[in-house]
Amino acid sequence: MNWLDDVKWDAQGLVPAIAQEVGSNDVLMLAWMNREALERTVQTGQAVYFSRSRQRLWHKGEDSGHHQIVREVRLDCDNDVVLLKVEQRGLPAIACHTGRHACFFQRLEAGQWKTVDPVLKDPAEIYK
Amino acid sequence: MNWLDDVKWDAQGLVPAIAQEVGSNDVLMLAWMNREALERTVQTGQAVYFSRSRQRLWHKGEDSGHHQIVREVRLDCDNDVVLLKVEQRGLPAIACHTGRHACFFQRLEAGQWKTVDPVLKDPAEIYK
Repeated sequence: MNWLDDVKWDAQGLVPAIAQEVGSNDVLMLAWMNREALERTVQTGQAVYFSRSRQRLWHKGEDSGHHQIVREVRLDCDNDVVLLKVEQRGLPAIACHTGRHACFFQRLEAGQWKTVDPVLKDPAEIYK
Repeated sequence: MNWLDDVKWDAQGLVPAIAQEVGSNDVLMLAWMNREALERTVQTGQAVYFSRSRQRLWHKGEDSGHHQIVREVRLDCDNDVVLLKVEQRGLPAIACHTGRHACFFQRLEAGQWKTVDPVLKDPAEIYK
């Protein structure tokens, strides 16, 4: 497992992981991975993150069904950031717990964060 | 400056910032910002990060000339990750200190990180 040793984990044993959608190249989200999360991601071909708030592995889509199928795993020049190229499950493709396509739906406009992307599905319908 | 107060800075006063290229949608790099870096980024329209290794503000391109012109600033659903949509300066567009277009040039293949993207310009020529 040398490739896992190549990653520079931070003091908490984590690295940021960016999920980018294959095709659109949209940046869907950023979450965190520990060594086990990255190992499981590669073994299973689905994104597994480490939830800092819950302090446990988090198989993306475990509640929503909105899994991320991992097509490519990349590492940056400093070996401390992971980039996943994924197919986002959900109809339509929903990565965000708010029911939006991606998590970056707030845009800075004239000194305010404005919500600029639509909710595609009511979270109450996703997490029922 | 309420919009800066809306950001959830971590224990070190930082948030990760993803730079994504306008047009191609390529993810160029991930760096870190403190409050002053984000404020200057918005004031100047060019990406300013906080270098954790040097513990100081880092105006991207200050040595290389490869500035990032910021066209859009976004914040994620948890208010703790910033996404910049940028025009990457350099001919060709080079974001990485290795002389590559983007920092994510290592791809996991059969249990090894393989360098899969070319050096576009010799770093010795960039940082002379």
